[in-house]
Amino acid sequence: MLEGVPFVSVSRGGRIESLHAVAACAATADGEILLALGAIDEPVYLRSSAKPFITAAAVRAGAAERFGLDDRDLAIMSASHNGEPDHVAAVAALLAKICAQPGDLQCGAHAPSYEPAALALTEPPTVLHNNCSGKHAGILALCRAIDAPFAGYLEASHPAQRAILALCERVSDDRFGADRLGVDGCGIPVYATSLRHAARSFARLATLTGLDDADAAALARVRAAMIAEPFYVAGTGRFDTDLMRAGNGRIACKAGAEGVHASALLDQGAGLVLKVVDGTRRAAAPAAVALLARVGALDDMQVSALGSHASHAVTNVAGLRVGTIEAISGN
Amino acid sequence: MLEGVPFVSVSRGGRIESLHAVAACAATADGEILLALGAIDEPVYLRSSAKPFITAAAVRAGAAERFGLDDRDLAIMSASHNGEPDHVAAVAALLAKICAQPGDLQCGAHAPSYEPAALALTEPPTVLHNNCSGKHAGILALCRAIDAPFAGYLEASHPAQRAILALCERVSDDRFGADRLGVDGCGIPVYATSLRHAARSFARLATLTGLDDADAAALARVRAAMIAEPFYVAGTGRFDTDLMRAGNGRIACKAGAEGVHASALLDQGAGLVLKVVDGTRRAAAPAAVALLARVGALDDMQVSALGSHASHAVTNVAGLRVGTIEAISGN
Repeated sequence: MLEGVPFVSVSRGGRIESLHAVAACAATADGEILLALGAIDEPVYLRSSAKPFITAAAVRAGAAERFGLDDRDLAIMSASHNGEPDHVAAVAALLAKICAQPGDLQCGAHAPSYEPAALALTEPPTVLHNNCSGKHAGILALCRAIDAPFAGYLEASHPAQRAILALCERVSDDRFGADRLGVDGCGIPVYATSLRHAARSFARLATLTGLDDADAAALARVRAAMIAEPFYVAGTGRFDTDLMRAGNGRIACKAGAEGVHASALLDQGAGLVLKVVDGTRRAAAPAAVALLARVGALDDMQVSALGSHASHAVTNVAGLRVGTIEAISGN
Repeated sequence: MLEGVPFVSVSRGGRIESLHAVAACAATADGEILLALGAIDEPVYLRSSAKPFITAAAVRAGAAERFGLDDRDLAIMSASHNGEPDHVAAVAALLAKICAQPGDLQCGAHAPSYEPAALALTEPPTVLHNNCSGKHAGILALCRAIDAPFAGYLEASHPAQRAILALCERVSDDRFGADRLGVDGCGIPVYATSLRHAARSFARLATLTGLDDADAAALARVRAAMIAEPFYVAGTGRFDTDLMRAGNGRIACKAGAEGVHASALLDQGAGLVLKVVDGTRRAAAPAAVALLARVGALDDMQVSALGSHASHAVTNVAGLRVGTIEAISGN
């Protein structure tokens, strides 16, 4: 059973109105547990938090060298982006480098998740606006690198997905049989692993240890790209972007749907992965900031710089503050 | 502490991805507890679930007789409506009856919550599209009935709000001091009461007992209107509307924000009120259907008729079903 600890409160008028439980694990690359909350051995879907490893599979297969991919390309491949014009341009540029078309992407179209970008559209959104379009383009780059067809690239049996899942198994020391696989919102396979193993995989993204040289080199390249181009991993106002900026090059992080957050902590040689048990996004950033501070990955000034992520205002239609979403005091 | 029981699961690929805890109470008008889940004595904000009592305060003050309000007027006054054209027309008609203007409503504008209605708009949404516009119009009707000014009608100290809170205290056998009040999304005061007391207040909406004659008559009038015009309480595809239809005149119900559901159960002489602890709307209907069946307020055929509310599909961008939101088996 997926179990957590009451951790993030939603208050109104000074009274707690709703409560979010969180499960979390911080661990080193060799498995030492630094922090455990709730059920850390229950498999959970990492969802988009796995994107850095998807990108790493493409890099390991030689896509970065073969197509001259730069930090921006690797960052957008690892992104759940806002669909801002610069994100759309980055995906288009990546597709051009790998001789692919927007029509090759099977992620489907949705409006930009960044509301000003959605409101500014004068035509219907395209597949490029889908927050996962960079990841899909990255999987196409992997297809090119291994000479696999684009056809069927969403299927778990496709050579590209097999290469991705194999890398994810190696970095997490886990195996993803059929009972561990689901289908993500954008159509690709997602895997479930325990928070303990997920934390280990992000610790390896931090330390580059316990891996063969090719995996280590690929993870190093992806991590450097995410840290160098945090805007392209998420976008304006987004927690991942702002956390990597506040982290001063010592944190690489990626959110996942249904309340997942994952960080590679370079100074601690550790990974931190959390799951909001009820899957609600609004609780993930306040929980992440509190737990990152607890393991020493953020100091008071950094927490302060992340203020609006650590503690969101609840506002009414008139824009007046009527409550707060924040980690419960003492956590 | 707001505590619940794991009750609604969100699955993906046959594995539980997220879990919602629920607190709930079913009680009779004289306080017999028929069902208790989690913390039933912790005050929770009823939010829009209190709207039938707001309407009742206007009816008790004579607004229905004075302005010739019919079932549709009283239903839209008790609504969190979809902003569909018929809802907007109903609020406009109500305003005309009480000699008020849209500009008198202080709820603010937002796009219709029913997406087809939002997409069909050719001009910016108005205050009439706000899901609470009928309630605000109803408060203006109350102002007219008690010869109070419209100015300041959002304030807890305004005579209209005092009349509303006094009726809510009477029906729930509770007192709402400053520590029990917050501000709702649309600006009016909201009160927190325990699920035990909230269930009692909805039991009274079902039995009309334990009240003075004027309150009983007002509640009877509001209940009849909601049951007669369920479309105007919510709208197309909405759980409240469909539950009242499935209830064949024996259930009057009203959802509230942050995962509240409240039903008056005429055959059981009881009220059922539940709160999704984490405040997520997606879990409220599956939990309500399961609990209503448990207390005998819905039979198998009625549950079946509510199928898509009892069990939602999780779909991906391509529209394929990749999971399910439903009450956990055995609940």
